[in-house]
Amino acid sequence: MIGIFDSGIGGLTVVKALTEHLPNCDMVYFGDTARTPYGTKSPGIVAEYALHDIEFLLHKGAKLIVLACNTASAAAGENIRKKFDVPVFEVISPAVEYSLRISRKFRIGVIGTRATVDSGIYEKKIRDINPEAKVYTAACPLLVPLAEEGWIKRPETNMIVRKYLHPLKVRQIDTLILGCTHYPILKKTIQRKIGQRVKLVDSSLTMAQNVKTFLEKYPEKYQMLSKNGKTEFFVSDVTEQLEKTARDILRKRVRLEHVRV
Amino acid sequence: MIGIFDSGIGGLTVVKALTEHLPNCDMVYFGDTARTPYGTKSPGIVAEYALHDIEFLLHKGAKLIVLACNTASAAAGENIRKKFDVPVFEVISPAVEYSLRISRKFRIGVIGTRATVDSGIYEKKIRDINPEAKVYTAACPLLVPLAEEGWIKRPETNMIVRKYLHPLKVRQIDTLILGCTHYPILKKTIQRKIGQRVKLVDSSLTMAQNVKTFLEKYPEKYQMLSKNGKTEFFVSDVTEQLEKTARDILRKRVRLEHVRV
Repeated sequence: MIGIFDSGIGGLTVVKALTEHLPNCDMVYFGDTARTPYGTKSPGIVAEYALHDIEFLLHKGAKLIVLACNTASAAAGENIRKKFDVPVFEVISPAVEYSLRISRKFRIGVIGTRATVDSGIYEKKIRDINPEAKVYTAACPLLVPLAEEGWIKRPETNMIVRKYLHPLKVRQIDTLILGCTHYPILKKTIQRKIGQRVKLVDSSLTMAQNVKTFLEKYPEKYQMLSKNGKTEFFVSDVTEQLEKTARDILRKRVRLEHVRV
Repeated sequence: MIGIFDSGIGGLTVVKALTEHLPNCDMVYFGDTARTPYGTKSPGIVAEYALHDIEFLLHKGAKLIVLACNTASAAAGENIRKKFDVPVFEVISPAVEYSLRISRKFRIGVIGTRATVDSGIYEKKIRDINPEAKVYTAACPLLVPLAEEGWIKRPETNMIVRKYLHPLKVRQIDTLILGCTHYPILKKTIQRKIGQRVKLVDSSLTMAQNVKTFLEKYPEKYQMLSKNGKTEFFVSDVTEQLEKTARDILRKRVRLEHVRV
């Protein structure tokens, strides 16, 4: 099956996108809710946690790993690929490639957690492909707690989103990468505040499309992963709020099984 | 020395208060920043983390333990006291006792993390002493990230504080317990939004006063703890933002030593 992990439950936006693209694949999700969030922590500790998370998924039988967390992808993506025999997908490269395909003026904005933005990985990957591209980043540390609280349509959230996006807006970006798997939850607000002309790149969707393209190229792998289209959900801590937010993202009730890491 | 721990760096408000009350005591602080926050997590996992934190402080030579975290006090306070030979102080009882001393109408508000509020511990402790008291609680999960971001005077913070305090204001509370060691950072905003007539109870200050009273009662313990008035700071993860917020709380630069738990 496909193993997917995130620091918490933001990565469920990736599960949702993967289920739409690959409805027959079995999946196992792990949310490290006992140590969430990753986005405010150092690259060293995030890389360490990402290793634990992957080992858990492999132990559960995953044959393909998806890092559904931009912070973990930024801190550990490259190294982790080399460490394991199974294919490992990080969330950043597909978003970068897609943004360069759709951008006209190559003025690209990126929003993410402080850890993701501080890593400079989006700028690097974008300029590796197109050295002429202009990249403007903004760390938005309060968006994860706002999304997890379910404050989607509140005026306070509008104000905070506007404040964070302001420096990107004045730079007249034409494309904005949502560089955190929580942000699709706030997509409508973000689109309204940055303006309807700016194209949003949802890293959950581009990641799912990327996995699908890969599996179409390797039909034997696809066949191995395709079974009943069932997903199991594991988390390292369970609370009521978590169950509620998970339900809101997936639009159905799921059982979050508690495991110790 | 006195060992103090918190889920992160909010507990530094307790260190500050302790240093003012007991300037000669040596202290060792531990902030579990690799797993912060505790306030959104389940009581089971918080109690487990609190045990690790105390074991670390004892290993560093602490002879008296201060739980500078309301969430940990709520989840683990009573059990932990029985587990260790050294005196263990939790942050809730002193705030409760003080609030009942200063309240006139016994209409007491309590704000805290979701975990603290859901535990119902403040209501229980207040009613154990005064069964007639009216207690109104409000979980304020966004105040910790706002305080840690340093968004102290921002209009967004004002709005969010007003929203959280509104249900307590309409109940005409006369006393408000700041049931999270982060909240003293936002004290001015909270006072303004709840109204100048409402007395604020800062659980950091009442805790420090409580430890002082205890040590005055047991001079041999006091003597054992009094030395150079130096404090060592340990954290399980270090970032720049953390160092900045620590500096803002303590109003001086301190060295945060990174340890693995």
